[in-house]
Amino acid sequence: MPLPDEPTISTERIFKGRVLGFRVDTVRLYDGKTSTREIVEHRGAVVMVPIDAEGRVLLVTQYRKAVEQEMLELPAGGLNLGEAHADAALRELREEVGVSAGNLEYLGGFYAAPGYCEEFLHLYLATDLHAAPLDQDEDENVVVQPHTMAEALALIEDGTIRDAKSVAGLLRVARRLGV
Amino acid sequence: MPLPDEPTISTERIFKGRVLGFRVDTVRLYDGKTSTREIVEHRGAVVMVPIDAEGRVLLVTQYRKAVEQEMLELPAGGLNLGEAHADAALRELREEVGVSAGNLEYLGGFYAAPGYCEEFLHLYLATDLHAAPLDQDEDENVVVQPHTMAEALALIEDGTIRDAKSVAGLLRVARRLGV
Repeated sequence: MPLPDEPTISTERIFKGRVLGFRVDTVRLYDGKTSTREIVEHRGAVVMVPIDAEGRVLLVTQYRKAVEQEMLELPAGGLNLGEAHADAALRELREEVGVSAGNLEYLGGFYAAPGYCEEFLHLYLATDLHAAPLDQDEDENVVVQPHTMAEALALIEDGTIRDAKSVAGLLRVARRLGV
Repeated sequence: MPLPDEPTISTERIFKGRVLGFRVDTVRLYDGKTSTREIVEHRGAVVMVPIDAEGRVLLVTQYRKAVEQEMLELPAGGLNLGEAHADAALRELREEVGVSAGNLEYLGGFYAAPGYCEEFLHLYLATDLHAAPLDQDEDENVVVQPHTMAEALALIEDGTIRDAKSVAGLLRVARRLGV
């Protein structure tokens, strides 16, 4: 039996920015009472597992202000307005990794933090990679870090890779490849 | 060589709520220019893989307003102020699943969305489970759904489980158990 939804009684708009929006919804609960839900608005994103001809996965490092540290992650990025997610995957691979991908396989995806955030990440396995001119966003400073899948899995176990989308995406692909 | 960090020039405080805060930092980039970073403030959380005596993983369903759908997830929850994460794991298992855990194994964790959110999730494998009185938060309506690990892995593949922390946590534990 499906759970009852939470109808919106009123919405307080708090913020609308470059990447995120923020609102507080007052909702009716299953028992008739009311509560509030603090919600991060997000347009959705893509995350890619790019594997080169030598079988290495092309990870990236970048400084992440929200967590005040450099992070090792799968390449990823937000959808532009109206952009198809396959197009976003190809664009982000050019911008962050400097490759074009001859083959993209869609693996579904996942919500980043469904308790409070709208963001859905579409996951792609990208192969048949070719060097393409690097075209980074001017407020990004991303460095490519190739690793074998075995190395990447060890970096998950030892806590070096500690980003949910990267852990989820790498482990999905590792199962698929039988690594 | 470590990447340069992004020193804060100024902070605009936007919101402080029950679960989340929100601020916009103006930062100095690696090239001397400035940019803004929209940041969701979060106290951190725990996510548990509870496995019962029959080897079943105890998942939960609940309605998630941010994504306007019922979600099947690992049990999880935010840290209370000053609460140790092992204590939070035991508390959330009682509140959401109605079990006490005789054994908790810490598996490290991951950031939910390090591009814009502070939330770090501590991951625990919980075994030696015993029924305990259910003690749900009054604005929660959570239903326990036991599945074998093989079923849970199939539900990831077919997109039924589509929550990053649950995909990451289940696949970490599946590798560990050799499933």
